[in-house]
Amino acid sequence: MAARSVGIVGAGLIGTSIGLALSRQGVDVVLADRDQERARIAGALGAGRAWTRDDVPRHVVLAVPPGAVAAELRRRQRTTPGAVFTDTASVKRRPQEEAAQLGCDLDSFCGGHPIAGRELSGPTAASADLFRDRPWVLTPAGATSTRARDEAAWVATACGARPVVMDPSDHDVALGLVSHVPQLLSSLLAARMVDLPDDVLRLAGTGLHDTTRLAGSDPALWDDIVRANAEIILDVVQALAGDLEDLRLALAADHGERILALLRAGNDGRTRLLRSRAGAEPVPT
Amino acid sequence: MAARSVGIVGAGLIGTSIGLALSRQGVDVVLADRDQERARIAGALGAGRAWTRDDVPRHVVLAVPPGAVAAELRRRQRTTPGAVFTDTASVKRRPQEEAAQLGCDLDSFCGGHPIAGRELSGPTAASADLFRDRPWVLTPAGATSTRARDEAAWVATACGARPVVMDPSDHDVALGLVSHVPQLLSSLLAARMVDLPDDVLRLAGTGLHDTTRLAGSDPALWDDIVRANAEIILDVVQALAGDLEDLRLALAADHGERILALLRAGNDGRTRLLRSRAGAEPVPT
Repeated sequence: MAARSVGIVGAGLIGTSIGLALSRQGVDVVLADRDQERARIAGALGAGRAWTRDDVPRHVVLAVPPGAVAAELRRRQRTTPGAVFTDTASVKRRPQEEAAQLGCDLDSFCGGHPIAGRELSGPTAASADLFRDRPWVLTPAGATSTRARDEAAWVATACGARPVVMDPSDHDVALGLVSHVPQLLSSLLAARMVDLPDDVLRLAGTGLHDTTRLAGSDPALWDDIVRANAEIILDVVQALAGDLEDLRLALAADHGERILALLRAGNDGRTRLLRSRAGAEPVPT
Repeated sequence: MAARSVGIVGAGLIGTSIGLALSRQGVDVVLADRDQERARIAGALGAGRAWTRDDVPRHVVLAVPPGAVAAELRRRQRTTPGAVFTDTASVKRRPQEEAAQLGCDLDSFCGGHPIAGRELSGPTAASADLFRDRPWVLTPAGATSTRARDEAAWVATACGARPVVMDPSDHDVALGLVSHVPQLLSSLLAARMVDLPDDVLRLAGTGLHDTTRLAGSDPALWDDIVRANAEIILDVVQALAGDLEDLRLALAADHGERILALLRAGNDGRTRLLRSRAGAEPVPT
């Protein structure tokens, strides 16, 4: 078997972290980014060498925002014949639909999404251990070849992650709830702090700090993610608007039982989340 | 001057932490809690000895929920003549109004609020270092004596905190924004996770974990806090409902600029918060 060679398009946090993890495993990694300075920094950090015209890697990872996946897939399928392709976008259905519309070869493509990230972005925030023991969702479509799927799983495993196969739509509903909407709520809350004087902000505790950490994320990337999954996010936002209205009514009426029920439901949700992380089955409290 | 003696009513997270911090300074601390088992645990942890009928401390700290402050102040003013009083509640205006209505002696009372906490509660979560370098708001009213104010500041300083004097209403507006509403949003978001299957919850990253950490807080305590500051919280909740409606419209219309502006405002708020914590003045980016 020939030595593994991987081409990575996009030298941001995710692309550079994949490059670092694969390079550490002895994989020959080549890197491209439309911002050549980012690619140069990622290369200097040890994430791979510059992708030249002569390089035809076996596997191409598209580490670009969801809105750029389909066009990039089409372009790279032309310049990298015989390769298989995966991506890392946080939304899966719309990029696959767009790839079909653009006439991409869907046989050689298996969607992917490493569930890891930081509120920091760019190559300098990257880490070879970013994906260690994290889920890495694979969303093969009907047309996806066994080879494309197996190679995408190999990339995930080589980065230290645990591959999980899901339907693209199921993935998008799940991520809307556990990632995209929390990002938006964190941003909405942090935005309310813009005009507060320092002596008020200094009264914030670790609670506000944690709750607004996501608000530090890259706005351009998240604008792209949110728009690509807008339909599903809209459902969750509408449900939350209803919750907020219930809260408003309970506050206006000094309805203590309703407020207590809301806080208890939050307790329950938090417990569910912690137990799922521990890998344990929920038990009655 | 006589040796300092402090009585603490309420052996929860805050009361026990104050007891631990003061005991470490050599202060004679006596503890009371209507739940005698909690008081016993706090005592066993080193937060003070049991408060007997013969103990008449110079200073009494009411570490009880906001809704219990006024009644407890009245009761302790009768049984602890000559003492000065402070509290630790997260809401300041309504407890002071209730104390006036109950005919408490306002001369010997200075409201207080140590800005520290954890999502864990009870004496076993306490720490002598909980207040170290944190703000501790004091809200003296017009009637508050210099002695009551100075003694409250002494408690704060002895616990390692930095006393900050504020108007009670200003405090409540500030805490509504930086603490009470973030708590409620965290609970609302976590409540949406209750019915999700484990395989979806396992896709959550550190973002959701941080955003829902506050949802693990004690519901009974927060029900009390939220109701005591309902009027101010209502204003912020209404503003957030408007923000959520703007987001809904932007999503429905695929209005990228509007979504981007929201995410950028979140970035700005987060930056403001981090800079206020660093104690630095905001500078243009």
